[in-house]
Amino acid sequence: MAKIAVLGYGTVGSGVVEVLSTNSSSIATRAGQPIEVKSVLDIRDFPGDPIQEKIVHDIDDIVNDPEIDVVVEVMGGVEPAFTFVKKALDAGKSVCTSNKALVAAHGPELLEMAKERKLNFMFEASVGGGIPIIRPLNQSLTADEITKITGILNGTTNYILTKMSKEGSSYEETLKEAQELGYAERNPEADVEGYDACRKIAILTSLAYGSTVNFEEVTTEGISKISTADFKYAEKLGCVVKLLATSYRRDEKVYVITAPFMIDSTHPLYNVNDVLNGIYVNGNVLGNVMFFGAGAGKLPTASAVVADVVDCVKHKGTNVMTVWAKTKLELGKTDDEVREFFVRINGDASKDADAVKAAFGDVSVITVDGIEGEFGFVTGEMTEKAFNEAAKKFSVINRIRIDKTILK
Amino acid sequence: MAKIAVLGYGTVGSGVVEVLSTNSSSIATRAGQPIEVKSVLDIRDFPGDPIQEKIVHDIDDIVNDPEIDVVVEVMGGVEPAFTFVKKALDAGKSVCTSNKALVAAHGPELLEMAKERKLNFMFEASVGGGIPIIRPLNQSLTADEITKITGILNGTTNYILTKMSKEGSSYEETLKEAQELGYAERNPEADVEGYDACRKIAILTSLAYGSTVNFEEVTTEGISKISTADFKYAEKLGCVVKLLATSYRRDEKVYVITAPFMIDSTHPLYNVNDVLNGIYVNGNVLGNVMFFGAGAGKLPTASAVVADVVDCVKHKGTNVMTVWAKTKLELGKTDDEVREFFVRINGDASKDADAVKAAFGDVSVITVDGIEGEFGFVTGEMTEKAFNEAAKKFSVINRIRIDKTILK
Repeated sequence: MAKIAVLGYGTVGSGVVEVLSTNSSSIATRAGQPIEVKSVLDIRDFPGDPIQEKIVHDIDDIVNDPEIDVVVEVMGGVEPAFTFVKKALDAGKSVCTSNKALVAAHGPELLEMAKERKLNFMFEASVGGGIPIIRPLNQSLTADEITKITGILNGTTNYILTKMSKEGSSYEETLKEAQELGYAERNPEADVEGYDACRKIAILTSLAYGSTVNFEEVTTEGISKISTADFKYAEKLGCVVKLLATSYRRDEKVYVITAPFMIDSTHPLYNVNDVLNGIYVNGNVLGNVMFFGAGAGKLPTASAVVADVVDCVKHKGTNVMTVWAKTKLELGKTDDEVREFFVRINGDASKDADAVKAAFGDVSVITVDGIEGEFGFVTGEMTEKAFNEAAKKFSVINRIRIDKTILK
Repeated sequence: MAKIAVLGYGTVGSGVVEVLSTNSSSIATRAGQPIEVKSVLDIRDFPGDPIQEKIVHDIDDIVNDPEIDVVVEVMGGVEPAFTFVKKALDAGKSVCTSNKALVAAHGPELLEMAKERKLNFMFEASVGGGIPIIRPLNQSLTADEITKITGILNGTTNYILTKMSKEGSSYEETLKEAQELGYAERNPEADVEGYDACRKIAILTSLAYGSTVNFEEVTTEGISKISTADFKYAEKLGCVVKLLATSYRRDEKVYVITAPFMIDSTHPLYNVNDVLNGIYVNGNVLGNVMFFGAGAGKLPTASAVVADVVDCVKHKGTNVMTVWAKTKLELGKTDDEVREFFVRINGDASKDADAVKAAFGDVSVITVDGIEGEFGFVTGEMTEKAFNEAAKKFSVINRIRIDKTILK
């Protein structure tokens, strides 16, 4: 019998308790022994709920309990999670977490603490919810040098963008609806401004290249400036707008960005809709692989956390090597990246097309019936720097980057 | 330095040697030490090729070499691969294989041999080529009870069906073209009759439920009876025809089948075209996850084999538990399965529709311009047994099962 503790009895924490109970027998088979939740840390009490008898309010009750082998941290946020996880590792307990903020900020330090103590620090649920992506990167794609990762890594924004695309509704009303349905937080900033996806691509990129992406250095744009009009142009181009979190290596530099992109129907993430996540990985010998599934939600996320618990129980006394050093990965400048851009400017297509072509090269102009006083166009491939220079001469309403990944 | 031997210097074997050389430095980081190919077993000689100095013709030269830790078996076929793998395990060497025939026939026995000796027997490349699916099933989806697996697991047939669908070409001419391009073998039976996909779904289902699917008991139909006319009806129904290998659990029984199915655009495998493979897995808490990628080919397959080699090197002296017992999994009867069917019969829609409805219920009749003397219809949900009974009364040209999996 392996005993575990859960830090935080919120959505994911209660999901972990539920999954361990629902699938107790198959989990015991996979882990080689039954797994039982002994203690749950929460500041609240849950009178009348069977969990109450396991509730503790002091982390030391867990840390000092020699029966507990594995601690599940699902509180979210960097503190006090970071302090609690360090205490647990120091006390000889492996840790599994779904907390991307913690992993993005302190992943390599916690991995090293675990390794020195022959313990494990696992975080499959921190990216892609229930989709296996951390373990595949660590253990399955080890023969490859990863050349590109592109993901739809945030379910909230994907829900909003899908809804805007299919129903022509505005950003504001769709966000409000998503909040009412519980798909978006009351303070939606972390999702809609791309901060959540940014941390996730920082984690994946760090694992792919073995050293640390400082997420604060990642160019990050959210979806709050995407409008109904943008989707009308996108439709004319056979495209949708998606919040992509992407990184790739070129000339020994790694470029990372989280931003809205236009993608067409040949793009492997074109059909990843609603709250689904999708992650595309390119390896230099493997070619392309894709992973799709529920990127969030109580049970899918809990499923990934519990899979980590099973792995920790199986590997008691042995560290499962994860290559992620504290060394900082030098990122390439977004200014130097080369891509196409979709642009909307104030003006009249018939009068201003020549000036646009003089600045951006031989672009094709797009107008949409019912949208007056402006027009759109798609540039050829150019650096972000050159684009920004050229754009200064115009009254730009919006510009959306274009991603051309093709899954062959 | 870990030293390995490769059995068979064919497509995959030479790929393994190439991948280990191309990515030697990143592989050394992931494995914790460099990996070198010391010997390659082949009946042939390769004069002038640098591999020649490593070629041996006698398996005992490898088995008796104490420097060799890991043996890669990429010969294909059950014998002599089975004998050689047993010899290697007996001599204390872990084994990695891409050989689905071997794994489907003797997987649990070889896993047990490896476990008893604190070695590993790994076979990621045996299903889905470069797509990580075996390790995710073993190590990532351990919190779940798997309820359904559906895959496009054979690239050759998917290439043929995609081509027939898009170009309206016949089965015979498309097969010939696939053979000329090297996508199909000169004797294409293993692919086109579904035997390859059948072994792969037997392996995945065995891993999902922890006991053995006897692949000889799996209902298996190939694609050789699929015609241009079938695709014309499919197009009218908004469907494509795919060779699916699928298993699911219902009322404590597991149903497994490999056969052509019609699927519509809401199906998660609808867009898996050409030589790509796609695998959909449903878990009781996870919901749906999907894996896509190159299901075959020299380098993608070698990438999966080498990832197994890395895992074997990392886990020297420790068996990575795989739950797959020799116990036979009792399969449900295909006769008891419930689904819809697309049917084509000889006759005249206007005259025979009533008889069809009397036999199959309230079906909707489909006719295709230019296809005379016959018509098609889609049944409601019924058992295979009831379908077969009803079909006896008609001159059936073809019937194709319909799969309704929806990825939410």
